Amino acid sequence: MRPSKRAFDELRPVSLERNYSRHAEGSCLVRFGDTHVLCTASLEERVPGWLKNSGKGWVTAEYGMLPRATGDRMRREAASGKQSGRTQEIQRLVGRSLRAVVDLQALGERQITVDCDVIQADGGTRTAAITGGYVALADCLAWMGQRAMVDPAKVLKDHVAAISCGIYKGEPVLDLDYPEDSAAETDANFVMTGAGGIVEIQGTAEGTPFSQDEFLKLLDLARKGINDLVGMQRQAIEAAQ
Amino acid sequence: MRPSKRAFDELRPVSLERNYSRHAEGSCLVRFGDTHVLCTASLEERVPGWLKNSGKGWVTAEYGMLPRATGDRMRREAASGKQSGRTQEIQRLVGRSLRAVVDLQALGERQITVDCDVIQADGGTRTAAITGGYVALADCLAWMGQRAMVDPAKVLKDHVAAISCGIYKGEPVLDLDYPEDSAAETDANFVMTGAGGIVEIQGTAEGTPFSQDEFLKLLDLARKGINDLVGMQRQAIEAAQ
Amino acid sequence: MRPSKRAFDELRPVSLERNYSRHAEGSCLVRFGDTHVLCTASLEERVPGWLKNSGKGWVTAEYGMLPRATGDRMRREAASGKQSGRTQEIQRLVGRSLRAVVDLQALGERQITVDCDVIQADGGTRTAAITGGYVALADCLAWMGQRAMVDPAKVLKDHVAAISCGIYKGEPVLDLDYPEDSAAETDANFVMTGAGGIVEIQGTAEGTPFSQDEFLKLLDLARKGINDLVGMQRQAIEAAQ
Amino acid sequence: MRPSKRAFDELRPVSLERNYSRHAEGSCLVRFGDTHVLCTASLEERVPGWLKNSGKGWVTAEYGMLPRATGDRMRREAASGKQSGRTQEIQRLVGRSLRAVVDLQALGERQITVDCDVIQADGGTRTAAITGGYVALADCLAWMGQRAMVDPAKVLKDHVAAISCGIYKGEPVLDLDYPEDSAAETDANFVMTGAGGIVEIQGTAEGTPFSQDEFLKLLDLARKGINDLVGMQRQAIEAAQ
Amino acid sequence: MRPSKRAFDELRPVSLERNYSRHAEGSCLVRFGDTHVLCTASLEERVPGWLKNSGKGWVTAEYGMLPRATGDRMRREAASGKQSGRTQEIQRLVGRSLRAVVDLQALGERQITVDCDVIQADGGTRTAAITGGYVALADCLAWMGQRAMVDPAKVLKDHVAAISCGIYKGEPVLDLDYPEDSAAETDANFVMTGAGGIVEIQGTAEGTPFSQDEFLKLLDLARKGINDLVGMQRQAIEAAQ
Amino acid sequence: MRPSKRAFDELRPVSLERNYSRHAEGSCLVRFGDTHVLCTASLEERVPGWLKNSGKGWVTAEYGMLPRATGDRMRREAASGKQSGRTQEIQRLVGRSLRAVVDLQALGERQITVDCDVIQADGGTRTAAITGGYVALADCLAWMGQRAMVDPAKVLKDHVAAISCGIYKGEPVLDLDYPEDSAAETDANFVMTGAGGIVEIQGTAEGTPFSQDEFLKLLDLARKGINDLVGMQRQAIEAAQ
Repeated sequence: MRPSKRAFDELRPVSLERNYSRHAEGSCLVRFGDTHVLCTASLEERVPGWLKNSGKGWVTAEYGMLPRATGDRMRREAASGKQSGRTQEIQRLVGRSLRAVVDLQALGERQITVDCDVIQADGGTRTAAITGGYVALADCLAWMGQRAMVDPAKVLKDHVAAISCGIYKGEPVLDLDYPEDSAAETDANFVMTGAGGIVEIQGTAEGTPFSQDEFLKLLDLARKGINDLVGMQRQAIEAAQ
Repeated sequence: MRPSKRAFDELRPVSLERNYSRHAEGSCLVRFGDTHVLCTASLEERVPGWLKNSGKGWVTAEYGMLPRATGDRMRREAASGKQSGRTQEIQRLVGRSLRAVVDLQALGERQITVDCDVIQADGGTRTAAITGGYVALADCLAWMGQRAMVDPAKVLKDHVAAISCGIYKGEPVLDLDYPEDSAAETDANFVMTGAGGIVEIQGTAEGTPFSQDEFLKLLDLARKGINDLVGMQRQAIEAAQ
Repeated sequence: MRPSKRAFDELRPVSLERNYSRHAEGSCLVRFGDTHVLCTASLEERVPGWLKNSGKGWVTAEYGMLPRATGDRMRREAASGKQSGRTQEIQRLVGRSLRAVVDLQALGERQITVDCDVIQADGGTRTAAITGGYVALADCLAWMGQRAMVDPAKVLKDHVAAISCGIYKGEPVLDLDYPEDSAAETDANFVMTGAGGIVEIQGTAEGTPFSQDEFLKLLDLARKGINDLVGMQRQAIEAAQ
Repeated sequence: MRPSKRAFDELRPVSLERNYSRHAEGSCLVRFGDTHVLCTASLEERVPGWLKNSGKGWVTAEYGMLPRATGDRMRREAASGKQSGRTQEIQRLVGRSLRAVVDLQALGERQITVDCDVIQADGGTRTAAITGGYVALADCLAWMGQRAMVDPAKVLKDHVAAISCGIYKGEPVLDLDYPEDSAAETDANFVMTGAGGIVEIQGTAEGTPFSQDEFLKLLDLARKGINDLVGMQRQAIEAAQ
Repeated sequence: MRPSKRAFDELRPVSLERNYSRHAEGSCLVRFGDTHVLCTASLEERVPGWLKNSGKGWVTAEYGMLPRATGDRMRREAASGKQSGRTQEIQRLVGRSLRAVVDLQALGERQITVDCDVIQADGGTRTAAITGGYVALADCLAWMGQRAMVDPAKVLKDHVAAISCGIYKGEPVLDLDYPEDSAAETDANFVMTGAGGIVEIQGTAEGTPFSQDEFLKLLDLARKGINDLVGMQRQAIEAAQ
Repeated sequence: MRPSKRAFDELRPVSLERNYSRHAEGSCLVRFGDTHVLCTASLEERVPGWLKNSGKGWVTAEYGMLPRATGDRMRREAASGKQSGRTQEIQRLVGRSLRAVVDLQALGERQITVDCDVIQADGGTRTAAITGGYVALADCLAWMGQRAMVDPAKVLKDHVAAISCGIYKGEPVLDLDYPEDSAAETDANFVMTGAGGIVEIQGTAEGTPFSQDEFLKLLDLARKGINDLVGMQRQAIEAAQ
C-alpha cells in the first residue's frame, strides 16, 4: 500500500498551467501532486562563446529551489555563494533532455534558457522540471514562430517527458512522492521522447543492489507514465492554439 | 494620467493569499497588481550566535527574484555566486521592518526567517514583501500559539505594512508600478505600523532633488495607502481564524 | 546632555583636508570629530559596458573600512571574500548622492570612482564620505578642467553634502557620534544640495516608531547642518584656487 | 572497426598498481589504457556532523583532474574557485558506488575519503575511479584490520566495479576510449557488485534516443566487462596478502 | 644618480608616528618618503584552533592597499572577492618577521593581529610594514604591560626591522623607491633583528641573474639601513614612555 | 646525523622522467627521494591581455598538491574554493624562476603554462618543481622547434634549477627532506642558472635568527647541489635527442 493510496502504476494528479509568467516568452507551472515547479523559457539573441559563428543555437536549463520548498528550510544557494552538486546535476540533466528533441541548427544562433524553480517540493522535482520545461520551451518556440523567427515544427523534433520509478517496500511503483522516495530501495529516473525513444536513464540502488529484472519492470512503468505525460503535454499545447 | 489609468492615490489590486505553501509554518502569496511575491515564515529552534543565552529570539528576512521575474532575464544569483547589493539592501530592510513590531523577548530563543521570493515583478517588490511577509509572520506565530509555544498577541505588537510613492510626470502618485518607477523623478518607500508610527522612510531623487513640500505629499499618500493595506492584512488574518 | 557635551544642533569639529593623496586626481581627508574618511577620486578613460557609445560618463563610489577603524577589530572584507550588505548599501548611497549633482553628459565618456576608506570610525561614516567625496570629486574635475578635458562648472551642477540626525534620549540631535548612534531611538541620514533640494532621506526607527512631527524636526536640524557643511566645502575649494 | 582495433567486447589493458602512495592508508594507481587515475583512501577519526553519535561511519569520494590530463589544458579548478558540475557529479557517483558495498555500522564512527585524481585522461575516468577506488578502500580496511580497528570482511560486503559502454558507429561496444566517447551516439555507465547486482546505471543519448533493446545489449556487455574487472581486483588484493 | 638624488646608501626620510589610531591597543603610521603605511595592533583573547590549550599565543599580520594608494587605481580586493597572491605573500612575511622576536609562550593564549594598510605607496611597502608593525606591536605589549597582562620585556625579545636594496643602473642602492624598484635589475628585501641576526632574506633577479658578490654588497647596505631603522624605533618607543 | 643518513652535502636520489604525459607538449616527473612532482608544459597561442600586440610571450606556472600527497590529508583547494597563500607564493616563484632563463621576445606571442602537481610530498616540493619544470619547458620548446615555431636555443638562454638548504641540529645541510624541514632552525631556497648566476634567494629563520656566515655556508652547499642538478637536467635532455 502506497502512503498516498495510489495504485502501483498511478501518477499523481498532474497539471500543466501555461502562460503563468507575464514576462517570459514561454512558461508553465507544472504540478505533480504537491510538487510544483515554475518553468520559464527565455530567449536571448546570443550564444555561448564556443558556438559563435556556428549557425547553431543552444538550449540550456537552470534549476533552483525556494528555501522553504521543502519540509525543513534549506540554505539559500545565493546566500551560500554556490550551487550544490545536486543542483548542478539536475540542471545538466534537464538541459540535456530538452536538447535531445531540439534541432539546434534550425533554432539558429540564439539561446533559450529554461529556468525551473521549485516552488514546493514533494519528490520528483527533476522529472517535473523536464516535463514542464518542455511545455515552456514549446511555447517559446511558438512565440518565435508567430514572429517568423523560426519554424517551430522544425526546431522541436518530438516531445520529451520524464518520470521517476522505484522499488518501494519490495514493489515497483510509478512516480515516487517524497515519503516513498526517502524510503525506496531503488530509485530511477527515465527521460523518453514521444516516439518512445530513451533519452536518459539514471538508476541508483539506495540500499541493496537491484537486478536486471527489477530494472526492466521500472522501465515498463516509466514507459506507461511517460506516455500519459506526453498526452497531457499535447493537450496543454493544443489548448493554447 | 498614469499608464495604468489609476487615480493618483489608488493602489493596484492587492491580494494576500494565505497558506500558499504546504511546508512553511506561515506563508502568503502577496500580489500588488502584476507584482507577485511568495513569503514564507520558517521557524527554527536556534538563534544567531550573538543571541545565545540572551533569552531573546530573532526575526530575519531573505529576498530573491526568480531569474525571469523581470522583463529581461537576470542572472541567477546562486550561479553568479553572490547576492547583489540591491538584494542585500532589500532583505535588510524587510528584516528591520518586521522586527519593528516584534517583541523579541516574548518570542524566546528562536529564529523566524521570512523568505520573500519574487515570482513576478512589476515594481514595488520590497514593499509587497514587507506587507505579505507580515502576514506570513503572523501565521507562523499563530501556528506557534496553537502549540502553546508563545502568546502571539504578546510577540506581535502591531501591524506593519509598506508602500512606495513617487513623483511621476510632476505629480505625486501612490504605489508605483514598473513603468512609473523607471520614469519617476523621485521614488520613496514608506514603512508604517497599524498605529500610524513611521518605521522606515527611504526617499531618493532620481533626477532633480525634491522639496520638503513634495516629500510631505508623498508621506500623506503613503499613510493613506498603508492604512488600506493594514485593513487588508486584518481581513486576511481574521478570515484565517 | 549629549555625551560629547555638544548642543543639540551642534556639528562635531569638521575639517576637509584636500590633496591628501599624491596619486589621485582629487582627494580629501574628511574629519567629523573622530570619524576620519579618506576620499580619493580616480579618473579612468572608460565607462561601464551599458554606457559605451552613449556619450555619457559615470560617477561611482566604493566604500571600505580598515579592520581596526572600530572599537573591536572587524574581519577584513578582502579576507572574508565579500563585501557586507552594509558596505554595499553605503557605497550605492554615496554614488547616487554624488551623481545627483553631476551632469553625466557634460562629463563625457569617462568614469570617476570615488573611494571612501574609513581610517577611523566614530559614527556618521557614510555622511562624512558623501561630504568629503564631493570635495575629492570637485578637485578631480578641476584637474580635468586644467587639462581642458571638461568644463568643471558644467559638470558639477551644485554642492552635495550629508548629515545624520537622530532622537537621542527623547531629543532630536544633529550629527550623531557612535555613543549616540548606538543608543538612538531613531536614526536618519539626509543628503541635500547647496540649493537646499533633498537628494536622499533615510530614516529608521531603531526602537519605537517615530511620528511625522519628530521626523520634521530632524529634517530641520539636517538642513541647518548641511548648510554649514556646504559652507565649509566652499571654503575648502576656494582655498584651493 | 574501433579506432583502437579492439573487439567490440574487449576492455583496454587494465592494471591496478597497489601501494602507489607512501602516505595513504590505501592507494591504487588504476590504468584503463591511457586513462590513469590515482586513488588514495584516507582514514580520519571523525564523521560528518549529521552522523555524530550515530555509531555509523562514512565513505566519501573526491575527484579531480590535473589541468593537462587532457588534450587541451583545462583551467585548474582551485584557480577558478569552484568545482565544475561534472566534477561534482562524478564524485557523488563514486561515493555512492563505494558505499553500496560498505557496512557503515561495521566501520564505526570514522570517515574514509577516497580521492580519485586523474593523472592522464582518455575516456572512462569515472569508471576507472570506481574500480581503482575500490582497491584503495579495500587496502585501507586491511590496514585497519591489521590494527584491529575493524573486521574488514564485515565492513566490505562485496566487490564493486564500473565500466562504460556505448553505441559507436551503430555498434554496441565495451569500455569507450576518448575518440569513441566523443563520437558515440549513446553513452552509458554501469556500476555492479561482484555478485552481479546493479548499483547504478546512467545511460544518455548524445544524439538519437536509444531503444530498450540497444540498452539491454549495453547492459550485457557491461556485465561481462565488470566480471573481468572484479577478477582483476581479486587478483590484485590477493597478491597483497 | 638616483631619481631622488639620494646617496646610494641613504634612506628616505623615515618617520614613525605612534598612537595614530584612537581604538587600537597599539598603532603607528610609518612613512618611508612617500610610502605611508598605517599599522595597528589588535589584541584578542583567543587563539587559532591549533593553539588551543597550548599555553602559547599568536602574532599574525594582514596587509592591504587602498585602491588609489598607487599611480593607477587598483581593483579593491574586497570587491574582487579575494586577496592577490602578492597580498598573501606580504602578509605572511610580515607575520613571520614579527613572530621572530616574540616569545609566544610569554604572550600567553592571546592573539595580536597587526594590520598594515598602505595609505600611499611609493615602493617598499612591505619593509615599511614590518618596521612600523614592530612599533605598533611594542605599543600593544606596553598597553598589556600597564594592565599587568604580560611582561612586555619577556614577550618582545628584540627589535626587528626591514629594508629593501637593489641594483639600480648597475649600482647597489639602499631603500628603493617606486621609480627605482620598477627599473632595478635585482631587488632584495632583508629583515634583521636589533642584534644583527638575519630573520629573512628575499632576493630576486628581475633581469640578469646576480652574483654572490653583488648580493653581499646589498646585504651590507641593508645592515646599515636596518641599524638606522632600529635606532629610530628605539627613539620612537622611548619617547612614548 | 641526518635522519636519512645522507652526508650533509648529499642530495636525495634525483630522477627526471621525461615524456610522462601523453598529451602535454613537454612533461617531466621529477623525483627528489620521496618527493614526486609531475610537471607539464602546455602551449597556448594566446597571451595575457597586457601582452597583446607586444610581440612578447609569457611563461607562467601553477602549483597544486594532491590531497593525500602529505602525511595527513589536506583539504582539496578546488573544494575549499581558493588557493592558499602558500600555493600562490610557490607558483609565483616557479614562474619567476623559469622566466629568468627565457627570452620572451624570442618566444613570440604565445603562453607556456608549466603545471607542477605534487603527487607525493617529502619536503622540497617547490625546488623540485623548478628543477623538473625546466625540463618540461625545454621539451615543450623542442617540440615547438621541431615544428619550426621557434628556435629553442634562442628562447632558452640557460638552465635553471633549485634546491633547499637549512641548518639542522646546528649543521648546514643540503636538500632538506620533510623530517629535517620541520625541525630546521633556518630554511633557505636557492634558484640558480647553469652559469652560476643567482635568480632567487629565500632564507627564513624558523627559530633563532641566522648569521651572515651561516647563510654563506648554505649558499655554498646550494651551489654544489644546483651544479649537480643542472648536470642531470643536461643528461635527461640529451638522452631525449
